[in-house]
Amino acid sequence: MTGEEIKSTAHALADAARAAVLPFFRAHDLTADNKAGLGFDPVTEGDRAAERAMRALLAEMRPQDGILGEEFGHTEGASGLTWVLDPIDGTRAFMSGAPTWGVLIAVSDDTGPIYGLIDQPYIGERFEGGFGSARMQGPQGPRDLQVIGDRPLGEAILFTTFPEVGSAQEGAAFHAVADKVRLTRYGMDCYAYAMLAAGQIDLVIEAGLNAYDIQAPMAVIEAAGGIVTDWRGGPAHDGGRIVAAAGREQHAAALEILSEVS
Amino acid sequence: MTGEEIKSTAHALADAARAAVLPFFRAHDLTADNKAGLGFDPVTEGDRAAERAMRALLAEMRPQDGILGEEFGHTEGASGLTWVLDPIDGTRAFMSGAPTWGVLIAVSDDTGPIYGLIDQPYIGERFEGGFGSARMQGPQGPRDLQVIGDRPLGEAILFTTFPEVGSAQEGAAFHAVADKVRLTRYGMDCYAYAMLAAGQIDLVIEAGLNAYDIQAPMAVIEAAGGIVTDWRGGPAHDGGRIVAAAGREQHAAALEILSEVS
Repeated sequence: MTGEEIKSTAHALADAARAAVLPFFRAHDLTADNKAGLGFDPVTEGDRAAERAMRALLAEMRPQDGILGEEFGHTEGASGLTWVLDPIDGTRAFMSGAPTWGVLIAVSDDTGPIYGLIDQPYIGERFEGGFGSARMQGPQGPRDLQVIGDRPLGEAILFTTFPEVGSAQEGAAFHAVADKVRLTRYGMDCYAYAMLAAGQIDLVIEAGLNAYDIQAPMAVIEAAGGIVTDWRGGPAHDGGRIVAAAGREQHAAALEILSEVS
Repeated sequence: MTGEEIKSTAHALADAARAAVLPFFRAHDLTADNKAGLGFDPVTEGDRAAERAMRALLAEMRPQDGILGEEFGHTEGASGLTWVLDPIDGTRAFMSGAPTWGVLIAVSDDTGPIYGLIDQPYIGERFEGGFGSARMQGPQGPRDLQVIGDRPLGEAILFTTFPEVGSAQEGAAFHAVADKVRLTRYGMDCYAYAMLAAGQIDLVIEAGLNAYDIQAPMAVIEAAGGIVTDWRGGPAHDGGRIVAAAGREQHAAALEILSEVS
């Protein structure tokens, strides 16, 4: 499969996921059903509907590829390529009505992700990276993505999803970095990685991630010139503790603090 | 001035603010200038451009009304009505590229705000409340706004902008409420109030607000059936410590905890 084929397949998946998931976003009638005790959870239903839509398309377009999805697990493939899918990254943002959740789609070989796409269906924004380009589409039209580059920690903007981060130890390590940056913000889920790729922020540090949480953001950020590793500088594509940075020296400065966690 | 005249004037202001502020959002070239040491700050410039645009329109359309604006202060009026303007609420979200900042426009008489509008220019969303209606416009079309209503604290979703909230005492009071709710999220600025009005979340608790931060959200939430007071149950329109709630019992339960702060 060529890069162009992978990209067009990924866009077809993202279009299908958008159509499947948007009816569940801010779905008041559905929430009312839930309150009536029918056990209906719009986030779970939206998650499943979007992953089902993407799997149906892949069965048609790329039956020889593997699939790793958040909702329906791992399907072996024969091509050496795996589609890594998170139909709603940021379920808590989704249930709060915040437009900072996303559909994550990555394609990986045995070295890790070679292409990634982050889609925000409500805003109509799509970020992608791989095969030598990093681009976004959104309300302001198409744009190239490029990280802001190395800035000292004292000038950096740092994001994570929630202040606890992970274990007490992981939280302490995060806050040791947070103490040195200009601004720390919370609550953005995958959208924070998109903003790093777009040159708006400098660092994202999280813990407890799954492969399907990080592979798409990782490919987008790397294509935009950034760095994504675990807290010891090793490969990030299996998830766990993640640090994403806009520059090499900044990444090293964050690692120096984070790597002290056992 | 009739309610319809106030609404159409507010929409004209919001349109003017959108056009003025959007060129500064995610403005990489401007950021590059800033890095080159020209002292250019896109947030400050966007803030000023939007307030200037709104004030110019008001000078034309409503010369007899007062203006209270974040950037250019208080202008006395003769009509008994004051336009309360915050051209960019959520400057930290704005500088991070997050689409959760907003343009806030309220109209108040001596009892407080009688109409409010929250605009998110990048997404193209507008929330308004007053004169017996609460509505939004956005990517999914027009919708009525209605709060979700009373749920016990144990089922509630709570938002604030940053985990410190305010003073150590204020932070402790906030976290005493947070300990009792289902989900606490951070980082949404005025967008959290819009989500409360839209029935997505239950509570917003903040401290250290100004009149121009709260008057528009307050009018939107009240028109959607919610309650906005200070932490002792008194009037909220002058800012300070704010609690906004989707239901009366929930509001009382939060106040019982918050009112212990001296």
